[in-house]
Amino acid sequence: MKGKVIISVVGGSSARDGELRAAEEVGREIARRGAALVCGGLGGIMEAACRGARTEGGLTVGIIPGADRNAANEYVDIPIATGMGYARNVIVAYAGDAVIAIGGKVGTLSEMAFASIKGTPLISLGSWELDAERLRPARVHRAKTAKEAVEIAFNLLNNSS
Amino acid sequence: MKGKVIISVVGGSSARDGELRAAEEVGREIARRGAALVCGGLGGIMEAACRGARTEGGLTVGIIPGADRNAANEYVDIPIATGMGYARNVIVAYAGDAVIAIGGKVGTLSEMAFASIKGTPLISLGSWELDAERLRPARVHRAKTAKEAVEIAFNLLNNSS
Amino acid sequence: MKGKVIISVVGGSSARDGELRAAEEVGREIARRGAALVCGGLGGIMEAACRGARTEGGLTVGIIPGADRNAANEYVDIPIATGMGYARNVIVAYAGDAVIAIGGKVGTLSEMAFASIKGTPLISLGSWELDAERLRPARVHRAKTAKEAVEIAFNLLNNSS
Amino acid sequence: MKGKVIISVVGGSSARDGELRAAEEVGREIARRGAALVCGGLGGIMEAACRGARTEGGLTVGIIPGADRNAANEYVDIPIATGMGYARNVIVAYAGDAVIAIGGKVGTLSEMAFASIKGTPLISLGSWELDAERLRPARVHRAKTAKEAVEIAFNLLNNSS
Repeated sequence: MKGKVIISVVGGSSARDGELRAAEEVGREIARRGAALVCGGLGGIMEAACRGARTEGGLTVGIIPGADRNAANEYVDIPIATGMGYARNVIVAYAGDAVIAIGGKVGTLSEMAFASIKGTPLISLGSWELDAERLRPARVHRAKTAKEAVEIAFNLLNNSS
Repeated sequence: MKGKVIISVVGGSSARDGELRAAEEVGREIARRGAALVCGGLGGIMEAACRGARTEGGLTVGIIPGADRNAANEYVDIPIATGMGYARNVIVAYAGDAVIAIGGKVGTLSEMAFASIKGTPLISLGSWELDAERLRPARVHRAKTAKEAVEIAFNLLNNSS
Repeated sequence: MKGKVIISVVGGSSARDGELRAAEEVGREIARRGAALVCGGLGGIMEAACRGARTEGGLTVGIIPGADRNAANEYVDIPIATGMGYARNVIVAYAGDAVIAIGGKVGTLSEMAFASIKGTPLISLGSWELDAERLRPARVHRAKTAKEAVEIAFNLLNNSS
Repeated sequence: MKGKVIISVVGGSSARDGELRAAEEVGREIARRGAALVCGGLGGIMEAACRGARTEGGLTVGIIPGADRNAANEYVDIPIATGMGYARNVIVAYAGDAVIAIGGKVGTLSEMAFASIKGTPLISLGSWELDAERLRPARVHRAKTAKEAVEIAFNLLNNSS
């Protein structure tokens, strides 16, 4: 694969403490494995994941809904201002070689749907439970911890390449 | 409200017979009430709904993923070629004053998610069951018949306007 | 061709009186020929063209930048709210079987560029002059009057179908 | 400003030798100044600019039209697959704190238009000549060499921040 491995982290701009800690740990793990982290660039889960990645010297990309890069959280290295509003969720989902969903609400659901449309490995850490039958041939891999979520993502990537 | 009431109908490009019959009846009911029908413009549920609307002299708009309008099913009056691929799902969802989901898989899920993001009245006719708690403040109204689905849509529209 | 012929009219949300009169006449001519008019749905050239089309009983579609259909001018029959900001210019350009540009500034330029990318017949009525060499194989057909602009559009459509 | 300075380089996927050499030098200069380079991720000018940036250890981001990251040229570090076709041109233009256009045809024109819509500093190196009056309040700064193009970009950025 040309370029860096990219893991997209999706989740709400407001989140519970436990979810934020998980997101930060997910960010750290992604960076430790040398992958770039893509997210929606704003607060909550997105910010926590970016902060984690930065702690470990990782690279973070934020796909911003508005036209102004300054809406990005302070741990985003590369803010991509799209001006497309929530339609940018499509890009957050499509950019990832794997997508990890942490908690989240309807925005996160849209990103899980687009990851499934594309057939991207999709891991849930306390996010939406979706009808497995209707989801097919896509599926959601459920993780119990941040570490496990990232492990599953990389295992799926290595098996598919 | 300026312009026509718009009901978006979302569902799969392949579907079961019962779902197709329901979609056609939904299309007819939308047209009888003088609303325009917006959909993704392709086959399956989209085509059945457009066929139903045309039977009743309704107006149908297809938001096409590709750049070529000729991908539209033959019951689309106004094919809007976007060239944006599945990102056009966002527009299908956003264009509706209400959204009716019939059966469907991950594409339909993405459209339900975007209707929920926008806060649009959303009715399911045998489509995804979504965790009501996580969905909040959005919700999915469940209908048992095509007629009921359209009735709920118009009731919600009338109450919100 | 399935569905109605679609002519996209592009131009600024503020415009000179002469341009507005031309846009209204373009809208009337499009409607007289039974085609649907697509535009960006807002004021200025867009509103004048829609008003002209409505005078003749034509159908008007407005591809709106925001998520709220009520931003549409009052002569839009079908407001398609995209929530995508100026990225909706791509769709305005792509939806037309021909594109007529009237006056306009950088927004109009973006729509002329996308019509050229797609290879859509493109007519200018007092709009941008573009380097013919660099534009190739696309080209801009220059019209002197509203009537001529619509005539050129339909001649090009008939020759290409 | 949070995150890295981003310079978008736009130009055709096929280009003349002189333009390719200029693009490579532009890429090198961007990297030497510590900025990230964003482009459309494909061949021609995009590839030459990325190659130049990589030579100097710079970071390159490619906003890809398709859904498959492997369409990126081999010098792209972070391929962002959008699946949105040419609509991704909007994002290439919006992501840059400044945009440098090198040669190019209608795709490049669309990116110059979107940079102008947003009001982003825009520099042309042998690219489109656009009517200054109609372009206002946007403008195109013309450079004669790759080095000058990047100097103008950074001067404009420093004056606006």
